[in-house]
Amino acid sequence: MAPEELFRKLRAGDRAALGRAITLVESTRQLDREHARQLVELAAHAAAPGVRMGITGIPGVGKSSLIDTLGMELLARGHRVAVLAVDPSSARSGGSILGDKTRMERLSHHPDAFIRPSPTGGTLGGVARRTRETILLCEASGYDRILVETVGVGQSELEVDQLSDLNVLLMIAGAGDELQGIKRGIMESADLVVFTKVDGENAARARLAAAEWGQALALLPARASGRSPEILLTSATTGQGVAELVERLETLAHEERESGRLDHRRRQQDLHWLEQMIDEGLRERFAAMPGMTAMRKALEDDVLAGRREAAGAAAELLDRFLPRP
Amino acid sequence: MAPEELFRKLRAGDRAALGRAITLVESTRQLDREHARQLVELAAHAAAPGVRMGITGIPGVGKSSLIDTLGMELLARGHRVAVLAVDPSSARSGGSILGDKTRMERLSHHPDAFIRPSPTGGTLGGVARRTRETILLCEASGYDRILVETVGVGQSELEVDQLSDLNVLLMIAGAGDELQGIKRGIMESADLVVFTKVDGENAARARLAAAEWGQALALLPARASGRSPEILLTSATTGQGVAELVERLETLAHEERESGRLDHRRRQQDLHWLEQMIDEGLRERFAAMPGMTAMRKALEDDVLAGRREAAGAAAELLDRFLPRP
Repeated sequence: MAPEELFRKLRAGDRAALGRAITLVESTRQLDREHARQLVELAAHAAAPGVRMGITGIPGVGKSSLIDTLGMELLARGHRVAVLAVDPSSARSGGSILGDKTRMERLSHHPDAFIRPSPTGGTLGGVARRTRETILLCEASGYDRILVETVGVGQSELEVDQLSDLNVLLMIAGAGDELQGIKRGIMESADLVVFTKVDGENAARARLAAAEWGQALALLPARASGRSPEILLTSATTGQGVAELVERLETLAHEERESGRLDHRRRQQDLHWLEQMIDEGLRERFAAMPGMTAMRKALEDDVLAGRREAAGAAAELLDRFLPRP
Repeated sequence: MAPEELFRKLRAGDRAALGRAITLVESTRQLDREHARQLVELAAHAAAPGVRMGITGIPGVGKSSLIDTLGMELLARGHRVAVLAVDPSSARSGGSILGDKTRMERLSHHPDAFIRPSPTGGTLGGVARRTRETILLCEASGYDRILVETVGVGQSELEVDQLSDLNVLLMIAGAGDELQGIKRGIMESADLVVFTKVDGENAARARLAAAEWGQALALLPARASGRSPEILLTSATTGQGVAELVERLETLAHEERESGRLDHRRRQQDLHWLEQMIDEGLRERFAAMPGMTAMRKALEDDVLAGRREAAGAAAELLDRFLPRP
């Protein structure tokens, strides 16, 4: 199907067409990528005033359950909800797969919700880049609340910060904060810090942890908005705090949009992705030059065997294929 | 001075020559870099059986004091000690500059110690790459114990893992573990976890924290060596635990060398740096192509103004300067 035709269907809300378009974006085939680029260009110009929310937390924090509940609340308010994922390790992870539909039971059966697991393979930057394009396609298809799920244990949460308008960091009380892999960078980019599973015997512990974190967060440098991250207590089981969470997200999104910060942030993100895509394409085109693979392999073997120093080997490869600066 | 001549002097232990050689490695001038490459190649082939130790920890953990004490102990055992630093933020950091001589009072006056602050500027990978070359120069100049200092709050500790034979993670009890920015990745690459400032009223607290961390560390996946990280308690003030720390480092280094793991690790690191240098050179040469700057600037302006989608802009730039794959 021609990109224009596919776009027309996707624009009309055709789920199958949206799925096909995303598959094109995730493809590594050259012709698919050309079509994907045309689709993304069309989608970018058909943007609706949606909100992109990053949802980060370590495995086991209850991301899927909270997203299921949060998504239902957004649907109840008349929104259309897409759930995407950036999973840097979906291939090797022994844990849950992000964006797994079976873990979002209610959302996955709702006609106005669209769930897509993380693209696999490639670098983390590449995975996030494709997620960015999927966001544009979803928005063009009428989804106005985009939830991007990721794992807060490495770099992926920083990538998501380049995709989202707002960031929610999920925390669980008593999991051993030092092992939750919480980096300052995540804390600093969080708009809301949400304690999950605040029910049963976990409730008191969560309240205590929230109070402690409240003090710690006050020490962080102020964000562009001048706000400090707020702390909320939620339970996907009882539903406690979820309506409040949605309310806060909607209010924050409104503030960001009205102040012009949202638009500014998105432009800066676009610039980031421009650099990323230039880098990605550069490596790809370099790698595809005739004779590259064999020469690179030979140099790698030399370095691994200790026959050559890495610096000299790198220079030799570059000299062969590109002019010196 | 010709690289061969500079190398001859450096090899004879001439400190000024070593300093000049490192300056070449850190230079961005094209001719300097050519000379630097020749020097590094010569140095790599003159390698002595030294040990490279990464020392990581958050600002305030007492890195400089511990390195001062640790370095003196290594000197007392007849070693020559070089202290280098990988500081991703030396330009913008408000805190101590890594590798600052004034913070290593005893070491900085010792004739067999050499201290060099972090190279500044460029990407973190670029900073670490230059530190790698500085290590080779120091080793060729007769320094057989290399301490590489870095900050464990971001990516720099992962870069150091690509430079070191052994990693020491410094921790301070009661600083609020959740704010020490300890990521699983650092814990997983630590050979020794060393509590600092175990003296005065901090001692009891440190013992408690060490016991807790001992339990947590036992849960981490086993390292290539099959060892779990060990925990040590030290005080730079009283000197407690420092001789033991050196003893453990020396024993571990011996084991790693005898088992062949050290050699294997260094080869893998060389391969990593080969890839890094190819990437770095690729970006550099691409950026230097005639007409690049103007076109890139124009496309960035278009993207920032919302006139163009980033994907299409990236493709246009690439198409102009490189063949399609």
